Amino acid sequence: MLSFQLLATQGHARRGRLTLNHGVVETPVFMPVGTYGTVKGVMPRSLVEMGAEIILGNTFHLWLRPGVEVLKQFRGLHRFEAWDKPILTDSGGFQVWSLGAMRKISEEGVKFASPVNGDKLLLTPEVSMQIQSVLNSDIVMQFDECTPYESKGVLTTEAEAYASMALSLRWAERCRTEFARLENPNALFGIVQGGMFENLREASLDALVAMDLPGYAVGGVSVGEPKDEMLRVMAHTPHRLPAHKPRYLMGVGTPEDLVQGVADGVDMFDCVMPTRNARNGHLFTRFGDLRLRNARYRQDQRPLDPTCTCHCCAAFFSRAYLHHLDRCGEMLAPMLASVHNLHYYVNLMREVRQALDAGAFEVFRAQFKRDRERGID
Amino acid sequence: MLSFQLLATQGHARRGRLTLNHGVVETPVFMPVGTYGTVKGVMPRSLVEMGAEIILGNTFHLWLRPGVEVLKQFRGLHRFEAWDKPILTDSGGFQVWSLGAMRKISEEGVKFASPVNGDKLLLTPEVSMQIQSVLNSDIVMQFDECTPYESKGVLTTEAEAYASMALSLRWAERCRTEFARLENPNALFGIVQGGMFENLREASLDALVAMDLPGYAVGGVSVGEPKDEMLRVMAHTPHRLPAHKPRYLMGVGTPEDLVQGVADGVDMFDCVMPTRNARNGHLFTRFGDLRLRNARYRQDQRPLDPTCTCHCCAAFFSRAYLHHLDRCGEMLAPMLASVHNLHYYVNLMREVRQALDAGAFEVFRAQFKRDRERGID
Repeated sequence: MLSFQLLATQGHARRGRLTLNHGVVETPVFMPVGTYGTVKGVMPRSLVEMGAEIILGNTFHLWLRPGVEVLKQFRGLHRFEAWDKPILTDSGGFQVWSLGAMRKISEEGVKFASPVNGDKLLLTPEVSMQIQSVLNSDIVMQFDECTPYESKGVLTTEAEAYASMALSLRWAERCRTEFARLENPNALFGIVQGGMFENLREASLDALVAMDLPGYAVGGVSVGEPKDEMLRVMAHTPHRLPAHKPRYLMGVGTPEDLVQGVADGVDMFDCVMPTRNARNGHLFTRFGDLRLRNARYRQDQRPLDPTCTCHCCAAFFSRAYLHHLDRCGEMLAPMLASVHNLHYYVNLMREVRQALDAGAFEVFRAQFKRDRERGID
Repeated sequence: MLSFQLLATQGHARRGRLTLNHGVVETPVFMPVGTYGTVKGVMPRSLVEMGAEIILGNTFHLWLRPGVEVLKQFRGLHRFEAWDKPILTDSGGFQVWSLGAMRKISEEGVKFASPVNGDKLLLTPEVSMQIQSVLNSDIVMQFDECTPYESKGVLTTEAEAYASMALSLRWAERCRTEFARLENPNALFGIVQGGMFENLREASLDALVAMDLPGYAVGGVSVGEPKDEMLRVMAHTPHRLPAHKPRYLMGVGTPEDLVQGVADGVDMFDCVMPTRNARNGHLFTRFGDLRLRNARYRQDQRPLDPTCTCHCCAAFFSRAYLHHLDRCGEMLAPMLASVHNLHYYVNLMREVRQALDAGAFEVFRAQFKRDRERGID
């Protein structure tokens, strides 16, 4: 089940409400990534507190560990990871593609050796749908091939991008058939591919729209292409998707990318950046990014961002304390930094929604840009 | 400031209330260890939730990182680590002693090279008092020499144990003088040494009691001696300490050790075991210990302990989920396991206090033993 209500628009930007089997998601939304059934370093209740309404899981990883037998026992991912709000799972396509030389792609699917135990495995559109049915995720992504931007320094040609996109379309059809056969009560999203070629993106989009899926994603961005190429695809594809269905931009990106994505008509985002950067001492704030390992923070008694309401800032953990924890390799450093960064992303989307509700998205966007460019004190 | 109220006794076991500058501590009490200004892997608010009333900090570690200059800026450890309840700091004696060949002990103090940056450092009774004054910990431990149980396989002789104990007494006097000179408003504890020799323990105790300090610790146990030797010292020393002052058994131990310690007249305990074992998948429960890495837990949907009220058990994180997180090296495994283990220790002392309040400590102790020996389902 999925229903999507479009509440307001401003230019391409949209304010919406997504109703899924496990709850309601206000859009635009940022979805924290929980690869192995855990958003790294963060308690589920911290996610609830910061206002996260939907998180991701990774089919590829969860297939390998703990495996479908365990997840079947728990009747899905929700109870296994003690998260009762909506979950979106990717199809595993991006992860097997990322294995590089370790995998072999054919019409049937992708053969690869398990990075965990070396087992020879075959992931197909049908297997991906079967695993995602076991996961019982609210949003199921089609199995696709992610078209690379380049391979060994050589740009992907239009012919290569076409072949890849066409394969993803044939896989989309197989996903739809298997999803229906499994009587999965959740929602299947298609993924627009086509590399950096607008005409291929349009062909992919048209074919997927003809399948009348409940939502669509833009894939194959943030795969190593230059920023202006990514922005070109973002400006091209999202707003062409059906207006009455949710639009998801996969794997993007910085706070600036998210705000741009909203302006381009995107409703849903996910990215590992807030959690990964947190573990490396890279913190996001309203007034630009803060590099915790910089010696200037050694005696800095201020919170990361005095205007931030996350547990880390509100409970008066100081920059000096976080700097110290990081320097000592203490777990509390990535724990607090992950809460802060995820809260920043989740809250940024809350502010975007408030601006859209008030009909003031462009005013918000200009202020956001000024604040971020001001830089940290 | 320290006041200690003895509320009830049963045999040597005592129920008490300790009032310190930052709050009240009900005894017997377990004190989580926060070496570098953080109880490893646990948010301060989780400590509050589980009912921890006092935590430890380590003078040695905090001297090296972040250093006294930073801690001075924060006017002590409490604000630095965002913990407003009582703190006890050890003197650094045990840590420099643990450096082994890396340090040189003289009448003046202990010379050693910083394990962080190689700097040549000298820790003396006076320096320890000065650092602990900066930390502003509610309970300050005297600087002492921990008498080893053996050295290179040779047991410490009585003459060696005597010399070591006598040095600790001279250092106790110097600590008392410096503590007074610094006008430290907190409470200084003396540490009984004497190795495995009852007569030396008694001499140490008598000399320290003559100094009329506000509290006393038993040190030099849990330093590699056989269990029966430790139990012998525990049975000998604590109940001989002044009845109207708090008694602290340093660095001990298992849940069974703690209950035995209470029976021996101890009021305060600390140990790294709950947090360290948590990180190694060793979990404490009412019905014995659980080794999370055992394959039998791969599909076990039950919480660690159905009778436990910690966040990990109450929020229905299952053994299978924790097993999975541990196997994947996910941070949430040690985070949840640390909350569970610390809650177990803190709650065990709460149950001990309730039993003492009800005049039923021996009944409790027998039930505790039966439950723990029953073993995990």
